[in-house]
Amino acid sequence: MKQFTSIIDVSDLNQLVESAVYFKNDPLVEPDLGKGKTLGLIFFNPSLRTRLSTQKAALNLGLSCMVMNFVSEGWQLETEEGVIMSGEKAEHIVEAAGVIGQYCDILGIRAFASFTDQEKDYKEEVLNSFIKYSKIPVVSLESATLHPLQSLADLVTIEEYKKKEKPKVVLSWAPHPRILPQSVANSFAQWMRQANVDLVITHPPGYELNTKFTKGAKIIYDQEKAFEQANFIYVKNWSSYEPYGQLLSQDPGWKITASKMGLTNNAYFMHCLPVRRNVIVDDEVLDGEASLVIPQAANRVYAAQAVLKSLLTTNF
Amino acid sequence: MKQFTSIIDVSDLNQLVESAVYFKNDPLVEPDLGKGKTLGLIFFNPSLRTRLSTQKAALNLGLSCMVMNFVSEGWQLETEEGVIMSGEKAEHIVEAAGVIGQYCDILGIRAFASFTDQEKDYKEEVLNSFIKYSKIPVVSLESATLHPLQSLADLVTIEEYKKKEKPKVVLSWAPHPRILPQSVANSFAQWMRQANVDLVITHPPGYELNTKFTKGAKIIYDQEKAFEQANFIYVKNWSSYEPYGQLLSQDPGWKITASKMGLTNNAYFMHCLPVRRNVIVDDEVLDGEASLVIPQAANRVYAAQAVLKSLLTTNF
Amino acid sequence: MKQFTSIIDVSDLNQLVESAVYFKNDPLVEPDLGKGKTLGLIFFNPSLRTRLSTQKAALNLGLSCMVMNFVSEGWQLETEEGVIMSGEKAEHIVEAAGVIGQYCDILGIRAFASFTDQEKDYKEEVLNSFIKYSKIPVVSLESATLHPLQSLADLVTIEEYKKKEKPKVVLSWAPHPRILPQSVANSFAQWMRQANVDLVITHPPGYELNTKFTKGAKIIYDQEKAFEQANFIYVKNWSSYEPYGQLLSQDPGWKITASKMGLTNNAYFMHCLPVRRNVIVDDEVLDGEASLVIPQAANRVYAAQAVLKSLLTTNF
Repeated sequence: MKQFTSIIDVSDLNQLVESAVYFKNDPLVEPDLGKGKTLGLIFFNPSLRTRLSTQKAALNLGLSCMVMNFVSEGWQLETEEGVIMSGEKAEHIVEAAGVIGQYCDILGIRAFASFTDQEKDYKEEVLNSFIKYSKIPVVSLESATLHPLQSLADLVTIEEYKKKEKPKVVLSWAPHPRILPQSVANSFAQWMRQANVDLVITHPPGYELNTKFTKGAKIIYDQEKAFEQANFIYVKNWSSYEPYGQLLSQDPGWKITASKMGLTNNAYFMHCLPVRRNVIVDDEVLDGEASLVIPQAANRVYAAQAVLKSLLTTNF
Repeated sequence: MKQFTSIIDVSDLNQLVESAVYFKNDPLVEPDLGKGKTLGLIFFNPSLRTRLSTQKAALNLGLSCMVMNFVSEGWQLETEEGVIMSGEKAEHIVEAAGVIGQYCDILGIRAFASFTDQEKDYKEEVLNSFIKYSKIPVVSLESATLHPLQSLADLVTIEEYKKKEKPKVVLSWAPHPRILPQSVANSFAQWMRQANVDLVITHPPGYELNTKFTKGAKIIYDQEKAFEQANFIYVKNWSSYEPYGQLLSQDPGWKITASKMGLTNNAYFMHCLPVRRNVIVDDEVLDGEASLVIPQAANRVYAAQAVLKSLLTTNF
Repeated sequence: MKQFTSIIDVSDLNQLVESAVYFKNDPLVEPDLGKGKTLGLIFFNPSLRTRLSTQKAALNLGLSCMVMNFVSEGWQLETEEGVIMSGEKAEHIVEAAGVIGQYCDILGIRAFASFTDQEKDYKEEVLNSFIKYSKIPVVSLESATLHPLQSLADLVTIEEYKKKEKPKVVLSWAPHPRILPQSVANSFAQWMRQANVDLVITHPPGYELNTKFTKGAKIIYDQEKAFEQANFIYVKNWSSYEPYGQLLSQDPGWKITASKMGLTNNAYFMHCLPVRRNVIVDDEVLDGEASLVIPQAANRVYAAQAVLKSLLTTNF
């Protein structure tokens, strides 16, 4: 694997999932794999799970880690080509990426959508500039449009808990007071379409995701109908794709409740976290036995370890 | 030791002090004790000594460290149960603690008093939520009401410098322009009552600490009288406990001066730092030979090493 | 070497450059040199290259690293002696430095010019207080007036790329919209005067640097004339020294263009970064084959490794 920015970078999905399970069984099984190498983790946005789980994964592999929060520790980067840099931005991404690429062996980048320009966001300007100019393997720590480390952990979790070979997995929109990225939902849809699951997506009309990621998935606008016979309910809020980045609905009728979960086939509840209790989902569901959110987050470490191992063994 | 949040968690105080002295004699004597394990240090408030000394202690034990400043790197946590999270707070402490607990083997938490609700502060809502939901051993890096790593270092320092078996130790309030927590003073009183010292507390009327921590200690409202025959003068400002979190006095007459130190039995001067020069204490005292503030701070490393060793050997 | 704050601390410049080249050839050649020791990196200002390259250098030497951004993670420090600390500043540098010195074996300090007081800046108040009170070897990570780690990397780069024994090196001012420190320019001039180069400095009248650093160097106010026969063009903006910290000119006529580079003897272009594209220098030059900015930044790691090795082998 040359980089890890979406499922498209994965040549053998089963093998990657198996590698994560292998590390889950014994996280310290390859303690010297990354010896003498350095992972740079560069954040343009806040992070809890991604930062700590990826750092932990690196530690487990003997890979050194340098974490930098660009916003509080550095300065703003220019991404436009050909611009006269007389404004607020002190450095161009061409130099920043080129330099950081020389100080690290692998680079993790978190750069969310700006929501000011759909085309730029969907071109993954920041992530792709780091790939182009750093010249080293890059791992997405959540980009403008995708969150593949999350999706791999999600798939590992579904494989771990599924009770039938091809489970029904429902990706459900739920209400939220803020404009949130589409990345987790896009990425989950993209990964599930490659996995051995029956994927259904449910959301209010107007919240259709980019079909590049969802094509082939069944979309049902009736949440209760979508939940029928489901084995996994994967919940996430996202803002609208068209028109871009809008908060079209906060309809509390889309909140996940115990009675809705009752419509499923004893489905597990999944969410990538952070989750707003009693807005996205009722306490009763989140704290219930069918909630997988905590073990799902634990799998972030092993997903990251599998990805880092693949990058370490392919590129060095 | 299952956790380290107050002296109540310590089963054998002498042994813990001896362990700190053992590490002071040779900080690198157990370089592999923490191998393969990870200490998470989570700060909800600024820190200099606690952060660096605990990180250094971990390094000395071969324990990996992940440091996170929640305010600048993460987001606000909700602590109330049952709340509808439609406001500013993006994540509930139930999930945050549950997740972090899976990425670390030991967790250090700094969470100061809010001063908005005495009952919540004294219930140690943040610290106790991390203990409850992380399910791993937790070390207080200063909580709303206590600072046990500081108190252990203080006790080690007193043991190191004392010239008589049972020294007279005076905890003295001194003036400060801001509303400060009661944690260091509460904790020092609690620890000294278990130590082989004669503890006297002196402060202006109205600055009585919670008797839970001070009961049995002699309180003298006349600072000069309190200083007589003292062997150690331990200085700290705190805000009032009743009414809660008030700045009742900034009386410069309570500042520590050379002439007041002259009333003692050649007492050492101690302060946990940071200290405001010429507000809390005159330069002459702080820079004098009887000032222990710098070696006292050095002992923070060995206190932390003793605590981490105890947690590592008891829980794993 | 007892400390590294300017070229004056370097006893054998050739040896230091050779040591950097030695590490460039094999960065991991001395992986245990720093074992059991800790480098503290304390930043009072933002940093990208210096922070990551110094941290990487430490990793390469097996030296543990603790990074602290004082502004976002700590509090303001008082530097005046004898002051009554009743204002915003919570701790005096005497205590902060004294404490940190006990937690680290080597200390790196970044503290830029304040531009409020020329005398204080040029006395290097913060850096020198850390040297005085920490009592351990201190490395400047860019101080108010100098940036020696940058200059060493610059010299290594010139040695690496020079085509004649004594190349002509031109330090050229270029326009910038903000008031920038004089440190990089001061330091470059100071180092080049000790190196085997023919140094010319060019800038608009009024931008004369402190002669303490430039004495002996040729100053030419005609940029095009200065460029004639040059082998290296080293570009940097700085604010005026007298009157102190002023933005006297933003004259775009001083920007580095391809046609100006054409006046040289096929000179290489150098800049310490970050650089404002099309303000300081045209894209065409920065992206051209003669631009060394990326390999110049790479050499920061090896310069830092050479300095850290020297401090480790001299002081312990």
